[in-house]
Amino acid sequence: MAIDLYWGSGSPYAWRVLLALEFKRLAYASHVLQFSKQEHKSPQMLAMNPRGRVPVLKDGDYVVFESLAVLYYLDRKYPDPPIFGRTSEEGGVIMRVICEFQAYAERPVTSIVSSVFGTAPSMPAPDLTEAMHGVASEARTIEGRLSKSDWIVGENYSAADMVIFPSIQLLRRALLRPAARDLSSRFLPIETNYPALVRWIARVEAQPGYARTYPPHWRDAQG
Amino acid sequence: MAIDLYWGSGSPYAWRVLLALEFKRLAYASHVLQFSKQEHKSPQMLAMNPRGRVPVLKDGDYVVFESLAVLYYLDRKYPDPPIFGRTSEEGGVIMRVICEFQAYAERPVTSIVSSVFGTAPSMPAPDLTEAMHGVASEARTIEGRLSKSDWIVGENYSAADMVIFPSIQLLRRALLRPAARDLSSRFLPIETNYPALVRWIARVEAQPGYARTYPPHWRDAQG
Repeated sequence: MAIDLYWGSGSPYAWRVLLALEFKRLAYASHVLQFSKQEHKSPQMLAMNPRGRVPVLKDGDYVVFESLAVLYYLDRKYPDPPIFGRTSEEGGVIMRVICEFQAYAERPVTSIVSSVFGTAPSMPAPDLTEAMHGVASEARTIEGRLSKSDWIVGENYSAADMVIFPSIQLLRRALLRPAARDLSSRFLPIETNYPALVRWIARVEAQPGYARTYPPHWRDAQG
Repeated sequence: MAIDLYWGSGSPYAWRVLLALEFKRLAYASHVLQFSKQEHKSPQMLAMNPRGRVPVLKDGDYVVFESLAVLYYLDRKYPDPPIFGRTSEEGGVIMRVICEFQAYAERPVTSIVSSVFGTAPSMPAPDLTEAMHGVASEARTIEGRLSKSDWIVGENYSAADMVIFPSIQLLRRALLRPAARDLSSRFLPIETNYPALVRWIARVEAQPGYARTYPPHWRDAQG
């Protein structure tokens, strides 16, 4: 069966799935859609995901979307190497950390990033500061985990790393912009404030196939 | 191993786990915490979940929280009967529908419910109307699924039903309040607007052990 992945450059949700496909060393055809040309809303894409969002994964005739569901499907269909741990207990912790990230960090990260890049109406400054405060607090918890272990949960690279990594990279990229100067003091310099996080980023970047997952337009724009 | 579930009356997240435990016919000790007495923030509870939220499930020495992670753990540890389908493909769809519900419906439902019950500052009327519009649109999609099948995904009661059902019941309860009169016209009467949803609610209510999952304080308050 052939796997097709439809994604867009810079989507943190799509990046998660790319990291999983590379880690599992699954062959896949990579289809990068141009958001600027609305390719994610084409009739072909809407037939697979009526919401017109990426990632969408097609495995033979089977279609799945929503990044966490794609990770879940891939792990169940192609269990070796696992991304949700080797035991039920470890799997529960990995899923818990993912759910916590989604519940407490994902929304403020998205608010900050879309405000800085101007892809959504800018939030009032106090709301942005509150979002940054929330993100810094969650990052502190993750820093704590990474100061005790190479990976976010347990001894191995897992779906928890794959879910969290793209948002951290996106956030760093946003906070380096001049528009984010006032916000970034809580987070940057990351090397000083979050040293374990920095070492973990390098560890993910060293994974085989990482270059194929890196957002193409970030490379063009020099970061 | 003994399972302990810590929950609170009316928490839709906890209700999901109760439905799963009953469906899997797992024996568990039920610990209903009194939110009004801040029992979910006791030192014992914070030691298990530093965020002080329910549900928290303890299985022997192992602790897991975040409702979706609890469902995932239970299904992996006690796979029969399954709540994430019998195949990878079905499991992917169940997880996808859950993720869609969380991404598009859960937040507006929470906004409406907390505004009506006054547990959060009331939202401005236009925001509430927009939230109700979003909820009605997601409910229409679910109605479409249920008009073709007895359950939200495939031929069996699954985690998708368990995740969505408590929020629907909570929403109905809120919309029946006089304070919600202006909002409820898009949704009520549910029998007319969402007939398949009503039959599905009855189907879940007929599951063995359902009465043990019903929020105790709803019973006391007559609905």
